[in-house]
Formats: sequence, structure tokens, C-alpha cells
Amino acid sequence: MHFLYKSDPVRGELWARLFAERAPEITFHCWPETGDPKEVRYLAAWIPPADLAQQFPNVEVVFSVGAGIDQFDFSTLPAHVPVVRMIEPGLAAGMVEYVMQAVLSLHRDGPLYQQQQRQRQWIARTVKPASSRRVGVLGLGVLGKAVLEKLRDFGYDCAGWSRSPHTLEGVACYDGEAGLDSFLARTDILICLLPLTDSTRGILNRKLFAALPAGAALINVGRGAHLVEADLLAALDSGHLSSAVIDVLETEPPAADHPFWDHPSIVLTPHIASMTQPVSGFEAVLDNIRRHQAGQPLVGLVDRTRGY
Amino acid sequence: MHFLYKSDPVRGELWARLFAERAPEITFHCWPETGDPKEVRYLAAWIPPADLAQQFPNVEVVFSVGAGIDQFDFSTLPAHVPVVRMIEPGLAAGMVEYVMQAVLSLHRDGPLYQQQQRQRQWIARTVKPASSRRVGVLGLGVLGKAVLEKLRDFGYDCAGWSRSPHTLEGVACYDGEAGLDSFLARTDILICLLPLTDSTRGILNRKLFAALPAGAALINVGRGAHLVEADLLAALDSGHLSSAVIDVLETEPPAADHPFWDHPSIVLTPHIASMTQPVSGFEAVLDNIRRHQAGQPLVGLVDRTRGY
Repeated sequence: MHFLYKSDPVRGELWARLFAERAPEITFHCWPETGDPKEVRYLAAWIPPADLAQQFPNVEVVFSVGAGIDQFDFSTLPAHVPVVRMIEPGLAAGMVEYVMQAVLSLHRDGPLYQQQQRQRQWIARTVKPASSRRVGVLGLGVLGKAVLEKLRDFGYDCAGWSRSPHTLEGVACYDGEAGLDSFLARTDILICLLPLTDSTRGILNRKLFAALPAGAALINVGRGAHLVEADLLAALDSGHLSSAVIDVLETEPPAADHPFWDHPSIVLTPHIASMTQPVSGFEAVLDNIRRHQAGQPLVGLVDRTRGY
Repeated sequence: MHFLYKSDPVRGELWARLFAERAPEITFHCWPETGDPKEVRYLAAWIPPADLAQQFPNVEVVFSVGAGIDQFDFSTLPAHVPVVRMIEPGLAAGMVEYVMQAVLSLHRDGPLYQQQQRQRQWIARTVKPASSRRVGVLGLGVLGKAVLEKLRDFGYDCAGWSRSPHTLEGVACYDGEAGLDSFLARTDILICLLPLTDSTRGILNRKLFAALPAGAALINVGRGAHLVEADLLAALDSGHLSSAVIDVLETEPPAADHPFWDHPSIVLTPHIASMTQPVSGFEAVLDNIRRHQAGQPLVGLVDRTRGY
């Protein structure tokens, strides 16, 4: 039984050692080295080979090495092959850290104090309690829930929105098209943690921003294609939105003349909010291989009709 | 029975209403209006009147409206009068928020990514887990403990140091002169939350910085006089320390030519890490008045021999 890994080669070396130690019955290959393609039963990749069905006819499960699978071209993946997203604790921990840092900075007037330092101004604003800040998360998957639980522990006034109904203790949950405007109207700091699908592409647009209260801020840690960049610029420049923290862009890296680089109200980071941690990512994959072999349900199995 | 408040007058108006509603038997005065000075039994102030003993001979308890009492001149306060520090949940919540934001920013390479954005560079560093960051807190009072509990919940490798031995679950506790160097040697991010006393004045100095590992960072949210500013500049400029987040200075506001304003490795904020919250601060004072009247121990009673 062979496992083929097609992603960062440094991480591939680590996975090679981990497979040798903890699953020696599985033969590990690191792309472009594949061994006999007919022997490959499991494939883990950021982007699977385009001719997967032809080249690896006996593959039984395809794993994404990242939390999302929007980079997959499903037309090249045989319909009978299960596709699995990465769900591992390191990914959620990294996302919680990034979002908490961004929310705390916005809540505690970080951008204002940075500007004041540059201008040599020593002016203290009253500290407002976390309970006075209304934070809302779009997307109630594993990451959205993890972020909301931590926000709630800090005492923020928390809400979440998702396509289908959810309940989360201490969090006001909204769902569906019908619930979106009410959710947005009560949200001062909006965090996007949606999967990227046909129905969420471009969701962070002029219409959505208009439904937020004046002075609201955006944190996009979903995918770049959730955001209509020109609409964000217009909302910031009109003053309706106060600031944005952007970790993902439709085109990465952005061009040297991209307007986000030096926008005074945008914090831009190079897609670092969350990364699959090498060891726990391996463990999540191995656990799913064991489940597959035992005929048990896979953790993170993608529903192709939903797209996540 | 009269209560005299000598601090921010806006907050004084709120306290006047709160006393009228919740302790109508106590007559509230807001400085400089004092009523009959001989009737004043309780005084709350940032800095008490210099002639307190003469002007208010019947005062029974003096409250600080802040977490510290280093701004008090004890020589003007009769020895028999109990002095009480402010301990209220809003102060701890604000401190936890400020410190968590600073630690998360340092842990997640915030200063680097800010610089990269200015330089239009899109370079992602691997996300290191919180467990790989060794954070240490000087001072295990109410604020130090609250900060350590939250740091521990995020998974940081946590230690604390104080004059006397403490135990805190999940935190390596060090104490006394003998324990200081071991504590410093294992600390990548150092947070000062000590009280300011004769024995802690100037503790953040060249010798202490030399005992930290190369590349360590400092967060000072204690008092400005804990820090020898020239020694911090030397440690940053030599590269031994990587960065500092400074919320308090010996002289506030700093002069326009103070070297911290535009130091590339210093984040400077105008003493806003934590502020007594008006309502919970009132409640802490009223609770102590009730305790005093019932002959019960006061919460936050200062030991004048220790200085906190």
C-alpha cells in the first residue's frame, strides 16, 4: 500500500520519517517520485495532479493538506473517490491566535495608537470593555466555532452566521439569507471564515458592507475570492468601514502596485493566519487512513454538492 | 457619613449617581467640593490631598482609584489609616487584553509583517505553535495571575516570578533573588507586572536584560520607573533584545524628543493597558466600605512595610 505526498518537500521529509516510524506498512513517496503509480492508494496534495484518474487509477482517498478544498478541480477527480479536508488542532490554534490578535488590536484602538506614536502624541482613550464590542463570524465550521469560543471567553458580544442553523453556547446564531442582514446590522467587527464556494464567492461586497453599522471593521481570513477588493476600498474611503485586516487575496502575491499595500486603513499579511502543523497534520491523515481501512466515517469528508 | 472622591470629575458624576442609588446613607462629595471636612470618613483618590491628616482628621479608609499605590506619599497618611488598592475585574480584563494582544503580535511576527507590508514584500514565515514560545511574568499579584492564566489557555510555555513563593497550575513558578536568573534564562517574552517599590525600582536594567536569552522581547505594563530607559535602548540597539512594548514611562507624557517615539523596535502606548472600570470600581469600593463597617478584612489592603 503506497501513499503519495505532493506538497512542500521539507514537510514531505518529515512525513516520510513519521510514516516510517508509525505506519511502516505504508510505503511513502514524495512527489515527483511516485513509485509504481498503480500502487498508490492514498494521495495528499495542495493541488492534485491534473491526470490523477489516468495516472493513479487505484487511488482510494484524496487528502487536501490545507483546511480548504476550493483549489481542487473536482472535474479531474473520479466521483467515487472521497476527498478529505484537513482538520487538525494546529490549524484551529493558529487561526484563533491570528483572529484574537486582530480583534484585540481593533477593540483596543491599536491603529490609533500606532498613528499617535508616529505623531508623538500621548492621548489615552477610555478602555471600553469587551462586552461593548459586537463581533460576528461568518462561517460556523471547525475554525469559526474555535474562534467564537475564544472571543466569548474574552467577554465579547458574539454572533455567528452560517448557511444552516447552528447553536453555540453564549453566541447568537443566525442562518441563511433571511438571517444575514440582522447578523450584519449588529456586527462591529466582522470575521470571514466561510468556505469558498459558488455561493460565497464575492460575498464581501458593497451590499454586505452597507448592511454593517457605520465604523465597522473587517477581518478576512477566509479566501481572497470572498472579497470584492474594489468594494472594500470604496467602503473604507467613504468612511463607512473603519479598517480591514486582510490575510488572503485573490492573487497571491499581489502586484507591486496593489492598492492594499499602502492603504492607511488596511493591515495586510501574507496568508499566515493559519498553517497545517506538520505533526498534527500527519496524525489527522493517518487517523483517516485507519478509519478508511476499518470502514469508519472519515473526518473532514467533503460533500461535493456543497463544495466543502 | 461622608465619602470624598478626588479624581476624574466625569467618573465622579457617575459615582455620585451610583452612591445615591445604592448607598443613599453615604453622602458623596466630589473634590474640590468636600462638605464639612470633619465628616469625611472615606476618601478615594489617585493622589490624596497633601494635608490629609489636618484637613480630614476623621478619615477611616483611603482608597486608591488605581491598581497601584506608588503615587501615594505615605508620610502624609496617618499610620492608623488603612490604605486600599483597587482590585476590580475590569482592571484585570483590560490588562489581559493588552498583554495578550502584545504577546500574540510578538509570537506571530507582527512587527516583521508590518515592515514587509511597508516594503511590499509577501513572504510567509512558518507558524510556530504557542507551546514553542516561553513567556514569563514578573509579579504574581491579581493582574500577573490573570495574565498567566490566559497565556496558559493559549498554550504558551508559561513561568512566573515573585518575591515570595507561589503555585499556579500549569505555570513554572520562581521566587526570590535566587530564582530570578533561572526564570530569566528561560523567558523569550518578558512581561513586567510588579508593584513599584524600593526593591523593584529600576529592576528592568542592563543586568536583567543580559540574563534573558538573545532575541528576547519586553512588555512593560508595570510602572515607568521599573525600567532604566537607557539600558533598554542599549539592549535593543545591540540586538540582544528584539523588541519592546512599552505602556508606561517614568515621565508621562514623554518629551517630544524622547527616543522611544520613533525607535523601530519599540511600540509605545499612552498608559492605556488597563483602567479601572467606573461601575466595577465603584462596586469594589462600596464592598470594602461594607466590610469596614462590619469589621471584616478589606480586599486590597496595602502592607505599608512591603509598599503594596
